[in-house]
Formats: sequence, structure tokens, C-alpha cells
Amino acid sequence: MSYTLGIDYGTNSVRALVVDVANGRELGVGVVDYPSGKQGVLTDSGDHHLARQHPGDYLFGLEHSVRTAMANAADDPDFSPDKVVGIGVDTTGSSPLPVDENNVPLALLPKWKDDLAAQCWLWKDHTSHAEAARITELAAKYRPHFIAKCGNTYSSEWWWSKIWKCSVVAPEVFDAAFSWVELCDYIPSVLAGVTDPRKITRGICAAGHKALYSEDWNGLPDKAFLAMIDPKLADLRDRLYEKAYDATVTVGGLCAEWARKLGLPEGIPIAIGEFDVHYGAIACGVDEGTLVKVIGTSTCDCAVVPTHKAVADIPGICGIVPGAILPGYYGIEAGQSAVGDIFKWWVEGVCGGDGSLHARLTEEAARLKPGQSGLIALDWNNGNRTILVDPMLSGLIVGQTLHTTRAQIYRALIEATAFGARAIIERIREYNVTIDRVVCAGGIAEKNPLLMQIYADITGCTMHVAGSSQACALGSAISAAVLAGEYPDFAAAQAAMSSLKSESYSPNASNQAVYNELYAIYRTLHDAFGGVTKTADLSRVMKRLIELRRRS
Amino acid sequence: MSYTLGIDYGTNSVRALVVDVANGRELGVGVVDYPSGKQGVLTDSGDHHLARQHPGDYLFGLEHSVRTAMANAADDPDFSPDKVVGIGVDTTGSSPLPVDENNVPLALLPKWKDDLAAQCWLWKDHTSHAEAARITELAAKYRPHFIAKCGNTYSSEWWWSKIWKCSVVAPEVFDAAFSWVELCDYIPSVLAGVTDPRKITRGICAAGHKALYSEDWNGLPDKAFLAMIDPKLADLRDRLYEKAYDATVTVGGLCAEWARKLGLPEGIPIAIGEFDVHYGAIACGVDEGTLVKVIGTSTCDCAVVPTHKAVADIPGICGIVPGAILPGYYGIEAGQSAVGDIFKWWVEGVCGGDGSLHARLTEEAARLKPGQSGLIALDWNNGNRTILVDPMLSGLIVGQTLHTTRAQIYRALIEATAFGARAIIERIREYNVTIDRVVCAGGIAEKNPLLMQIYADITGCTMHVAGSSQACALGSAISAAVLAGEYPDFAAAQAAMSSLKSESYSPNASNQAVYNELYAIYRTLHDAFGGVTKTADLSRVMKRLIELRRRS
Repeated sequence: MSYTLGIDYGTNSVRALVVDVANGRELGVGVVDYPSGKQGVLTDSGDHHLARQHPGDYLFGLEHSVRTAMANAADDPDFSPDKVVGIGVDTTGSSPLPVDENNVPLALLPKWKDDLAAQCWLWKDHTSHAEAARITELAAKYRPHFIAKCGNTYSSEWWWSKIWKCSVVAPEVFDAAFSWVELCDYIPSVLAGVTDPRKITRGICAAGHKALYSEDWNGLPDKAFLAMIDPKLADLRDRLYEKAYDATVTVGGLCAEWARKLGLPEGIPIAIGEFDVHYGAIACGVDEGTLVKVIGTSTCDCAVVPTHKAVADIPGICGIVPGAILPGYYGIEAGQSAVGDIFKWWVEGVCGGDGSLHARLTEEAARLKPGQSGLIALDWNNGNRTILVDPMLSGLIVGQTLHTTRAQIYRALIEATAFGARAIIERIREYNVTIDRVVCAGGIAEKNPLLMQIYADITGCTMHVAGSSQACALGSAISAAVLAGEYPDFAAAQAAMSSLKSESYSPNASNQAVYNELYAIYRTLHDAFGGVTKTADLSRVMKRLIELRRRS
Repeated sequence: MSYTLGIDYGTNSVRALVVDVANGRELGVGVVDYPSGKQGVLTDSGDHHLARQHPGDYLFGLEHSVRTAMANAADDPDFSPDKVVGIGVDTTGSSPLPVDENNVPLALLPKWKDDLAAQCWLWKDHTSHAEAARITELAAKYRPHFIAKCGNTYSSEWWWSKIWKCSVVAPEVFDAAFSWVELCDYIPSVLAGVTDPRKITRGICAAGHKALYSEDWNGLPDKAFLAMIDPKLADLRDRLYEKAYDATVTVGGLCAEWARKLGLPEGIPIAIGEFDVHYGAIACGVDEGTLVKVIGTSTCDCAVVPTHKAVADIPGICGIVPGAILPGYYGIEAGQSAVGDIFKWWVEGVCGGDGSLHARLTEEAARLKPGQSGLIALDWNNGNRTILVDPMLSGLIVGQTLHTTRAQIYRALIEATAFGARAIIERIREYNVTIDRVVCAGGIAEKNPLLMQIYADITGCTMHVAGSSQACALGSAISAAVLAGEYPDFAAAQAAMSSLKSESYSPNASNQAVYNELYAIYRTLHDAFGGVTKTADLSRVMKRLIELRRRS
């Protein structure tokens, strides 16, 4: 009998999970909310694009979540800490943080502890949109291959945009940083006791398109290109890394200090860090033909194609990186910048309600038929990640009358995110990547059958739900199990350790017919406001919505 | 010493006002809420376009509002009922109702009392949009001059659309009706004891463009044209009227029955009935160069030009009718289908608040700078009356983030109605009608300085406020005073009996500059969704809003 530990760093909390390697059974869990900021996020009232996190929260959360998970697992008489054979870690990303030459985050030093620029730049920080646009421009001109695999657009959510932004707005922080590290590489490095940032084993998952890393051009972007952005970035390159690795490689063994803190055997292997949804996709059974959607505050979509097959560059898709999810496969990543966050904004931010209002609006919205509200919305309150890759977009709702209700708007917002999901699936398919199964994970997928049915009706795909409600942590634990030699490969580990829930959601043909018409309107608005077309005919939009309302 | 009585039929209540003819002093008021329906409006949950009123409410309200006003006026020792020298009446419109051969509304007969089609078809009833479109089409083809003075579009809010709709959906009601009468003609006819619909003295205010009446074509539309719409309408023409009159003509003297009911001298003159805002405009000092805006649930705009001057046909403007407001002047009428109704929808319908939330959101919205919310909205939740004349439009809000607040949306909705107001002013000016002064009336104008300042900043016009909070009833009383021979003409009566409040709202130059940029975006959306252009470039809309937000 052996167990692995999966540790999942989310946006608001960290979760540790003790898993039975034989069958994926979850023995114990520990969740710690980050103590700092607003639900763990440091914000700036003057700039809603800013989102940072205090690295101290990560270490605090690491110790307490694992200790709680272990204590809970100990309720099982078969379990004992010495049977834990490996640890996997996943985190949000791209979430880079500056560290000193000892691999200590600057924000843990007294001098920088309150400086927002010295914190971890959380994935959803969009302050560097101008920098992202400039990197896109320079790459398009001088290194088009750099961005060809990430939809030809470099994002403000990614590594270089954020680090450059720091150099521009907080040069004193940038200068004080010896190196920068992705959160998903930082936590494993802490567990492995790495005290020199140059010696961190970095994962290709985060390096891939986020840091523009590829073996095709010998790793990170060349210094000449970085110097065009900012000479300081060219200098930084020497203090980063030459090579990034997939999940067949270990970061090292658990160091003595953290073995003691966590009550675990010293030296057990630490798996390479990946982004939460990438490991989550593994726990959802990602394989060729399966799209995994992790639906939370935002949505991340993952698909894989074996590396022996050719994959075209797909415009607007975030990244196509070998080994980014599963070793031996290209990882294809897409996503929507806000999903649950939009519902939360509506219910809590605008309507001033709480969890019970979510439930009430869901109930009312469930009684509406497709088209009945006469509304349509765009799901861009936090910009568009895929397929427009443009954070400088915003929300839109059209079709309101004097009788429009909050529940109708709630449903229109759910539909908007489903239309966004459909746009992603269509784009991936256009480039001959098969999607014949969709598996969803995340709290929303489990708890909101209305949303799942709408997603099925709008995308035309049957929606399956992951068996675990802690898919990301489970995926990390699976990776640790493979690395510890418990399984010969990921496919075998997935087969044994992951599962689907029995219920699934199939498209309803008559709803699909109405939604096909609404999707056409969504695309008209999407293309007009998203800048795909500069000669949009919107003269019929409101009339079509009224017609659909009447028909329903 | 003499007094007149002004009676104002609004959407939810009727108000009677006793006025001192010498100086416009208001001695007594009586307000009666209509007892039927939802705040006086009969609705149909299956069709939110439907809005009707029960005629019994009008007679009930007539007696009780006048009696209350008289009782209150009696507190003044100088007042006595025998000193009342005339009565003026204004109502909403176009609000036609079917009557039998004795001028009794069908809905007062047991057989029809519960039939929605037999009630008064309230101004804001939009059920006949298809009929309006067809009348527009036929007129454009066969009688273009009929609609040239009403913006080339016949509205679903008007006389023929509604009567035709009745003939289509409720032929039994149409067949039972001997004639139809506008509410503003019906009430004076009751006071004057007219018992034959053919003998009602009808006002040109309602007849004008609403019933397509003009002396240029010998009154109502010819029977051949009406027969193209519906042969039944051609037959009905014989039971309507040949001539309509301006406010120099009396409808008759107060009949014995109503003199007794109201406690007033028999035989005193009843002024011709006009729409509420037309008489309201008179009480606001309407004259060449002055635009009067009555801002309530919807907004009506009135301007006048002397009939000896030429006025071009103005596309999208509701009506240009000689004598419709002031005798000797063309009346120019425009409007917005929903203003206060939009704020009410947002605060009460969506946010679930009450009057105190209106106040709180106003306070929060007042702290925002122009452009700061990053939002822009269209004011079309109830369609667009001017300048698009299209009820088949709807609301739109764009620019939402995850941080957008209800107060920001509230302010964006106020701004949207102000942009709509500016579009009207610009359209009227484009056709060489001078507007150098704006006078506002209605509860919103009096009670919401934030809205008034935004209107000033967005339109670039100084906003004055009418001295009376009961401008429509006061205007009716002024008309009665002129008719009773107390003044030689309207100008003299206006000078003596009407006034402005001392405070006014002047444009703030720096706000104006930002709003000019936002108005350009509003017009882009307006023209795109309103069908003015079929090749709209909206690719910069969201980015411009974000830029303006940052600048503010």
C-alpha cells in the first residue's frame, strides 16, 4: 500500500490531498485560505487589472494544508505517513515571482514585504496589457515563430509581460530580484530545498508558450530579442534556465526541513510542477479526442495530440507545447478569462446577494426557455483569452426591456460563457484536432446542472463530469505516483486512479436549434466588438432577439 | 378675482388644480390614483407591450380629484366655487378608446367591462408595432405626405395602429364600437355633456400626426387609403370627425350633471383637450427658441415655430402640426419612450430596491466622473421614439468589468437618456429650428440635480426648471383662462401665470469634453443597432471606453 500527496494552489486557497495510489481513493484533504488581501488576492482600488499574492501565504498554506490532510488521512487505519511515496504540486499560472540569489521571494524580506511589485504576479493580473501588445508586435516583426504556437498573440497574463512591467513601473524591485520563478516551479523547489534559483528544475508546462520557451529555438527567447524589449530582460536570461522538463522528470527529493514540517519521509520524489488545470486534465482522463474543461472563476480548456502527429498553429489558441500536459503529447491550452467570476459579479457585486441568491436565480433561470429572455451577452468582463487574446475588451448585454429580470440576466451570462466555450471548440476543430468527448471539472461543473445542460445545448457536446471534486490535486498525486514508479506511464495511472461521475448532460435537440440562432448573433457581436470585422451589420440584432423571444 | 381648473390625466393618476388666474398661484390640488390594474395600468403577463386603462377610473378620478382640489382651495378665504371661470383638461396620448353611439365607453358596459381590447389603449401600449409598420409602408408608397411631418414613420403608439390592431385581434369589440375617441377629447366631451361621438369637438393636438389629420388633405386620411389598411377603418371614418380645432375653441359649457358632481358653476367653458406635455409646455413658457422637456417615466419634448415661418419636415421627429401646442404656431414634438421607467427598472426591477436605493445610488453615482465607469448604454429598453421611431429596439450596456457596480450602471443609464436627449436636440437644430433655452418639468427635473447636471453637460444646454411641479395641470388652467377671456392671448397668460425656478444647471466645460467623446461612441452604437448604418466599425468601442476610464 502506498499513497501520494497532491497539492493544488488555487486563486483563493491551497488544497492538499492524500490519495491511494492503487485506486485514486482520497483519504484526506486539507484546505487553507490565503490569509492576505481580499480572499487571498492583493488588489489596488485604483487599477482593477492588478492582482498579486503574498508568497508567505503559500508557505503558510503549504504547511497547514498538508498537515491537515495527513491528519485526516490518519483516520484510515491502513494509512501511515511513511507510506507516502511522492508529492505533486500544481498552481495557478502564469504567476511569476521575484526571488533573491538564495531563492527567497523578495516579498519575504522586510524591505519589500509591502511592495505590490515584489509579490507574486497572479495569473489574472492584467496590468501589463501594453507590454503584452508590444511583445506581440516585436515578435510578429522579428520572431514570428515565437508566437505562432500561442495564437499569434502574447498575453498580459504571461511571464515576460509581467516581468517587463515590473522593470518599467518598479525598477528597484526588478533590480533587487536575482531571478524570477513561476509559482508552479517555486513550490517544488522549496520542497526540494533548492536555494539557488539557477538550480531549480523548471517545468515545460509553464515555460512553454508563457515564457516563449521551445527546443525549436534552444530554450528561452534569444538575448537579442529580449534586448529589443528591454536590455534588462536580456541580462535576466542568464539567471533563469536553459532547459525545461516534462512530467517524466523529478525536481528532487523532499528536503529535511520540509519533511520535518510536513511529517513526511525525507527524500521522496517531488514531481515537476504544472499549472493546476494541466494536472487537472490528467485526473479528468485527458487523451487524444477528449477536451477537459476546468470551470471555476475562469475556465481552462486542455486537449492533447500525440507528438508524432502534426499539429497546425491554431490562431487565438493559447499554447501548443510538447509535454505541457502529458509527456509524449502536445498540450493544447485555451480558456476564458472569467466564468464563475462573471456570475459572482452579477449575483454578489451587482444584485448584492449571497450564496442563497445564486441558488434562487439558478432556480428562476432554469424555468426560462432558450431565447425567452430576449437577451444576449458577451462573456468579456475580464477580457477575452481565447480566441481573441485581448484583455482590452469588456462585457456587453443587449436586449433589455423594462421587464428584464435579474434571473434573465443571470441566465444570459451563463449562456454567454457557453457561447464562448463553443467558439473555442469550433476553433480547435477547424484545425483538425478531434474533440469527441468533453469532461468538465471544478465546482461549477459539479454543482450547477443548469449550466451544464446549457453548455451541452450550446456546444452540442455531451458534458461529462470528473469523478473527483479535487481534480487538480488528484492530477498532481497521479503525476507523483508515476514518478515514484508506481505505474509504468500516465495512461496506466489515469486508468487506475481517475474516474467520471455517472451522470452526464446530453444536448436537447430543440434547445440546440434555438441556441444555434443565438450563437449566430453572439458571433456577430463577438466579431464586431472583438475587431474581427470592421464592417458589421448589427441592424437586425435587436429585432432577431425580439423575434426569438416571441417564438419561445 | 377669478380661478380656473386644470385637470391632468397622467399614466398612474389624475390631478386637479385650482389656479388663480391673476398670477398662477395654485390654491388647491387633488390627486387620485387610478384604482384598477397595476398602478392604474391593465397589463398582460404574456405580452409586455400591452398597456390599457379602465375608463371608469377616469370618471372616478375626475369627480374625486376635482372635489379634493376645490375643498383644498376653499382654505383660501377669497376663493369660492362660483369664481371658477373655466376648465382645461390634458391627458396622455395617443390613448384612444372605443365608445358606443351615446359616447359611452364600451368598457363601461357590462358586456365588455373585462375585455382588454374594449379599454382605453394607453399611449405606451406597443402591441400594434406590426400594424404601425404596415401603415408606414402603405403611406410611404401611396400617401408619402401623410407621414412626412411625423418623421416618415407611423408609430405603434398612435391612433390608427391601435384601432386597426383592435379590428384584427378583437373584431367583436371593434364592431361593437360606434366610434373611437382620444382620451383628451373624451374627458372634455363628458364635462360638456356630449352624448353623440360625432358631436365631440376634437383637438388638433391629438388629431395632428397621431390620426394623420391635416387641413392640407381635408382632415383625416381619405377613405381609399384607409380601405387599403382595412375596409372597416374606411367605414369608421364616417363616424369620426371632419374638423379638429386648436386651443382658441371651446368644447362647450360645463353640463348640469357634472356641474353638480363637481360643485362648479354650470356652463363655464371647457377648453379643448390637449396632450399633457403640450399644455405642460405652455406652463413652462414654450415660445420660439425654447425647448420644453417633460421628464417623467418617459420624456416628451416640445418646441414651437410661428406658422408664418416655414418648417422643413424633420426625419424622425414625431409631429409638426399647426396649433398642436399653441394657436398660431407649429407644434414640434419629440420624445424618448422610457426615461424614469429605465431608472425604476434598474433600481426596483433588477436591484430589488425601493425609493431609498434610488437615493443611495444617486449619491454614489454623483461621486463618479464622466467616463470613470467605462460604461455606455443605449436608452432603448422601451424602444426608440425619436429619432429612430422604432419600438422593436431594446436596451444595451457595454463596458462591464468584474468590478462594475450598480451605481455605475445607474449613472450610465442616466447618461444614456441624456445622450438620447442630445440626439433629439441635434436633429431639430439640423433643420434650422432654433433651440437656445431648455426648460424642464416633471418630478425628475425637480428632484434629481445629478440628472439635470448630466443633461446640461451632455447636451451643452443650460437646463432651467419649471416653476410649477404641476406644469401640465397648470397649462390646462392657463388654456382655460385664455378661453374664458381673462387674457387676450396665450403669451399674456403665460407671462402672468407661469414662472421658472431660480436654480438652473449650466454645462461644465471639462465634463462636456469627456461627454463629447462618449457621445461619439453612443452615436456609433445608436447608428449600428438602430439600423442607420449597415457597415459599422465597433472594433474600437471597448478600447475607447477603457481609455476614457483610465484618463478619468
